[in-house]
Amino acid sequence: MPDLIDLRSDTVTRPTDAMRAAMVAAEVGDDVYGEDPTVRALEERVAGLFGHEAALFTPTGSLANVLAVGLLVAPGQEVLCESAAHIARAELGAHGAVSGVTMRTWTDPRGQVDLAAIEAMFAPDMGPFFVPTATVSVENTHNFAGGAVLPYADLVALRSWADSKPVRIHLDGARLWNAHVATGVPLADYGAVADVLAVCLSKGLGAPVGSLVVGPADLMAQARVRRKRLGGGMRQAGILAAAGLHALDHHLDRLADDHAHARLLAEACGVDPATVDTNIVVIPHDDAPRFVAAARDEGVLVSAVGPRTVRLVTHLDVPRAAAERAAKVLAALR
Amino acid sequence: MPDLIDLRSDTVTRPTDAMRAAMVAAEVGDDVYGEDPTVRALEERVAGLFGHEAALFTPTGSLANVLAVGLLVAPGQEVLCESAAHIARAELGAHGAVSGVTMRTWTDPRGQVDLAAIEAMFAPDMGPFFVPTATVSVENTHNFAGGAVLPYADLVALRSWADSKPVRIHLDGARLWNAHVATGVPLADYGAVADVLAVCLSKGLGAPVGSLVVGPADLMAQARVRRKRLGGGMRQAGILAAAGLHALDHHLDRLADDHAHARLLAEACGVDPATVDTNIVVIPHDDAPRFVAAARDEGVLVSAVGPRTVRLVTHLDVPRAAAERAAKVLAALR
Amino acid sequence: MPDLIDLRSDTVTRPTDAMRAAMVAAEVGDDVYGEDPTVRALEERVAGLFGHEAALFTPTGSLANVLAVGLLVAPGQEVLCESAAHIARAELGAHGAVSGVTMRTWTDPRGQVDLAAIEAMFAPDMGPFFVPTATVSVENTHNFAGGAVLPYADLVALRSWADSKPVRIHLDGARLWNAHVATGVPLADYGAVADVLAVCLSKGLGAPVGSLVVGPADLMAQARVRRKRLGGGMRQAGILAAAGLHALDHHLDRLADDHAHARLLAEACGVDPATVDTNIVVIPHDDAPRFVAAARDEGVLVSAVGPRTVRLVTHLDVPRAAAERAAKVLAALR
Amino acid sequence: MPDLIDLRSDTVTRPTDAMRAAMVAAEVGDDVYGEDPTVRALEERVAGLFGHEAALFTPTGSLANVLAVGLLVAPGQEVLCESAAHIARAELGAHGAVSGVTMRTWTDPRGQVDLAAIEAMFAPDMGPFFVPTATVSVENTHNFAGGAVLPYADLVALRSWADSKPVRIHLDGARLWNAHVATGVPLADYGAVADVLAVCLSKGLGAPVGSLVVGPADLMAQARVRRKRLGGGMRQAGILAAAGLHALDHHLDRLADDHAHARLLAEACGVDPATVDTNIVVIPHDDAPRFVAAARDEGVLVSAVGPRTVRLVTHLDVPRAAAERAAKVLAALR
Repeated sequence: MPDLIDLRSDTVTRPTDAMRAAMVAAEVGDDVYGEDPTVRALEERVAGLFGHEAALFTPTGSLANVLAVGLLVAPGQEVLCESAAHIARAELGAHGAVSGVTMRTWTDPRGQVDLAAIEAMFAPDMGPFFVPTATVSVENTHNFAGGAVLPYADLVALRSWADSKPVRIHLDGARLWNAHVATGVPLADYGAVADVLAVCLSKGLGAPVGSLVVGPADLMAQARVRRKRLGGGMRQAGILAAAGLHALDHHLDRLADDHAHARLLAEACGVDPATVDTNIVVIPHDDAPRFVAAARDEGVLVSAVGPRTVRLVTHLDVPRAAAERAAKVLAALR
Repeated sequence: MPDLIDLRSDTVTRPTDAMRAAMVAAEVGDDVYGEDPTVRALEERVAGLFGHEAALFTPTGSLANVLAVGLLVAPGQEVLCESAAHIARAELGAHGAVSGVTMRTWTDPRGQVDLAAIEAMFAPDMGPFFVPTATVSVENTHNFAGGAVLPYADLVALRSWADSKPVRIHLDGARLWNAHVATGVPLADYGAVADVLAVCLSKGLGAPVGSLVVGPADLMAQARVRRKRLGGGMRQAGILAAAGLHALDHHLDRLADDHAHARLLAEACGVDPATVDTNIVVIPHDDAPRFVAAARDEGVLVSAVGPRTVRLVTHLDVPRAAAERAAKVLAALR
Repeated sequence: MPDLIDLRSDTVTRPTDAMRAAMVAAEVGDDVYGEDPTVRALEERVAGLFGHEAALFTPTGSLANVLAVGLLVAPGQEVLCESAAHIARAELGAHGAVSGVTMRTWTDPRGQVDLAAIEAMFAPDMGPFFVPTATVSVENTHNFAGGAVLPYADLVALRSWADSKPVRIHLDGARLWNAHVATGVPLADYGAVADVLAVCLSKGLGAPVGSLVVGPADLMAQARVRRKRLGGGMRQAGILAAAGLHALDHHLDRLADDHAHARLLAEACGVDPATVDTNIVVIPHDDAPRFVAAARDEGVLVSAVGPRTVRLVTHLDVPRAAAERAAKVLAALR
Repeated sequence: MPDLIDLRSDTVTRPTDAMRAAMVAAEVGDDVYGEDPTVRALEERVAGLFGHEAALFTPTGSLANVLAVGLLVAPGQEVLCESAAHIARAELGAHGAVSGVTMRTWTDPRGQVDLAAIEAMFAPDMGPFFVPTATVSVENTHNFAGGAVLPYADLVALRSWADSKPVRIHLDGARLWNAHVATGVPLADYGAVADVLAVCLSKGLGAPVGSLVVGPADLMAQARVRRKRLGGGMRQAGILAAAGLHALDHHLDRLADDHAHARLLAEACGVDPATVDTNIVVIPHDDAPRFVAAARDEGVLVSAVGPRTVRLVTHLDVPRAAAERAAKVLAALR
């Protein structure tokens, strides 16, 4: 579909020629034995970026989140999260179905940290009748809240609150790179507020496959065992890791372009650009499926994420010219 | 502890002599083979009370809830409930750990049905990436909201909303008898708003052991299999069922006394009796554990359900004289 | 069904008048709070009988086994057992479905301990790729092997082998009382060969409801939590425990009668009585369902446990006269 | 480690230059949306090879087996397999821990189909007390039995038996390619005896990452959902699928070389080459760890798979000269 402009998701990016060249040249080994030098290099680099001891490469962001939450929350314990969090709404219910954890939720239209709600919901360990709160999970940027950034001060306040409790913090950072670029907050500062993070290489960064769990070395060793049990222990994964290393070198700063393109599209669609924090635009529309079909007829792919909600996502494969063309198409359809 | 007045929970009641006589005379059989006539009589009677096809006897209210929710919500689907619901906070996380369901919650200080929140959270089945809402669970009366009653009109509105969706309703009726006595709403009307109910015999009704799941015959047949898998398929359970039948005959109307005693205690403790819907009184206190200890020294057992929250529960084993004595003791301690 | 002689299972026994009298007189409390004196007395007595630290009362033998195996075998570890063991064939697959354990099996037509097979199957902990053997489970007497007794010397040899390994022993003693009476081996000696036992009160002993898990105090404390999560934490269970205490006082030695009656029935049915170790008789028959129906027409209930296998079980409710009458009926049907 | 000869496993192979070239040139799309043309091409090709309707690409062979068995066996049902099967011994117990299935096993020193044992173990569906047999799983070639081939006639006999029962067959074909090359039995004939197969690209075929589940279209659609829940739904997986397509074109017939090298190594090590069916050699040795260490000192990596068992595996990265060098080294160490 060479002429289509695909704004359905930033997961659709295809590896660039330079990324493919990096992949083809990757030194590899059997990563189940811990012998793939490129995977190890990627894991060490990402751990270092966030100031954590270790990281573990996974085939998907879903697996990274399942491992992260499963490490922090035992069956019989609970994780608190915003009600539209990806771990709650997507991932096919794996946190209950596979990991057996309990989930309770607060609701914020922008997916924000609501510390008052969290404090009110927090359940201390009151003995073997109740479900204690083990972890608070936050998502930055927040996918279903339209790529909203969580202000860093809110994360610091949450961290500070959690430090006074037997509560740990999971940061679903599938699009944390976008938050970093949008705010300028250093990656290590984000790392400092989380016990375990999950970050993704195959969304804005444009790698074909791969995510990482990041955290303390002992938890990552456990994550390695759980990854194998869930069927995620790949062999010569260095091919994929090489794409991730290339993406970190070449595709991180350019996320600013995606954000600019998203604001441009927002404006064209009558959405206040001030509400567009990163690379996702949410457009209210009376008949979302009709809008999607009409846009498709004009060569622009967008998603209906609800009966009256259209979503656009900008990414590596949508250069400025394409964004401008899409903006023109979508503006005409409103 | 003959002189103690035990207000910790209505689960502490001991069978009366008349109930024991009913138990000793019960005709029994092997209920795993479906041959216990007293169990069958109880199941038929309770199903009839709520206008449902069938019921299944279980050793505990927790098991009744686990069976009910597990029947209505598959792994990969979700149940919505109030954030202090018993299925969320208690039951040791079985709904995730055993049944693998996802849970999302709204919060209401009185444990009420918040239909606007439910509508906003409702997730339609959008294909195999998302977690669809299968069931809304409500608890009436609501234990951790101080025995609050859910107004019947709210249940009817919820039922009506659910009928327009592929959503079913679970009613955790551990203390539904109390709601019925407090409001005068017929049991069958409560039955009409729920797809599956769980009701308990060993709380206000004073039976030593036993609860029931109530619902359509096909679901109850499945519940029977799941009950056995979870180790809840007892043999000559008619001994226990006889106590339940006796309780329905003799202990239902008298719940009004418990409610009166609860208001009496509330007044003595400076709590507005208008906030006491049924048999539970929640008392704010600066140092709940100290209050509990002081009350105990005076022969009155109460619970700290939070660092600054004391809870009293009235029941069959607290006659008026005892309630008055306890009121005097607790008033003096405030 | 007053005239029927029910040889389907020893689970069908109804409590005697004396047992009912014991139940009606039982002192009770809320066992979820650990305050039921009769439950505690039963738990202490049974723990003592087997020379173990503690015991926990459960509503069923299935739950006792699920707790026992689940305590000894973590998800990702395995239990070895004979392929017709009750934990493998019955209990609706709870050990996989609820506890997530792996099972591997050896096969012995009499359900015996095959130490050579066990040694060959034993899997040491070879690191996080393999499933290590955590527990060997043996069943004594062995239900589906026709109530066969496991020779005590074999249990001692197994214990001695296990002591040299990180392997623990689960003894499914649903009918261990029968083995004890048949062999004269003291209960404490059986206790000495197992890390955790499950024993049942509602089979040969004739109590209406109840089993116990028996083992070290720390494991039993964990079992208490798991019991509640699985919905098995009953309140005033002392009513049931009283029946168990009565059964231990009055129904243990009389199991010898059941064994004699089983041999009598075997002889009448052309089965070598030397193969009848305890209270179960297995009869090969060309058309088991037809035999079952014909026996029923004559007032004798027996089971088809396979297309060509009939099973009889003697128990408390089959006195000698009934056994003799059944023998006559069945002999005539062969 | 350029000078080492790595005989630990056929999973250690590194992609060839030609394979890398195929990967770098792969056309890709978002496979979560079903839009990766190279993944689809691979899936269609592999389904076609085995005469099945559909196939699904997975990141690992473990995931392929977990999906296959989980589709065929529900919680509460059982799978029968040989006691040293990979699904029993390896995969970290996922079939119990993740899928909740029950497993029972027969034992054969060469990992063979023992139809008499299977028939004896087969459990029909006898109602909701028992665990019915849903699936028999066989592994061809059998890894822990030294790469033993299952004779095709045995598979046909098993298929024929299963057709008379409500039993389906899972074929763990991680190394089915080796069986095919060793016996000349067409792949489609192997496909014909199994309801669902799992085949692997990253062992003998030399691809870096990837396996496939193969079976009916409706089951594969379910497998796609379960794959996503378990975190195995990769995005631009065509990069990896391209390696698989290349491997099918170029690395299938050459498995005969691996088999010849294995016999050569067997002979050198005093193992009867007639016992070496494919690419795995099992060597009894008094002190396996010492042998492993000594071989390593000479530049040859082998595994101790038991205290007195050494294993060698030949593969793509062990050309004849290396095999001969290794043979000389190992012969000298015996």
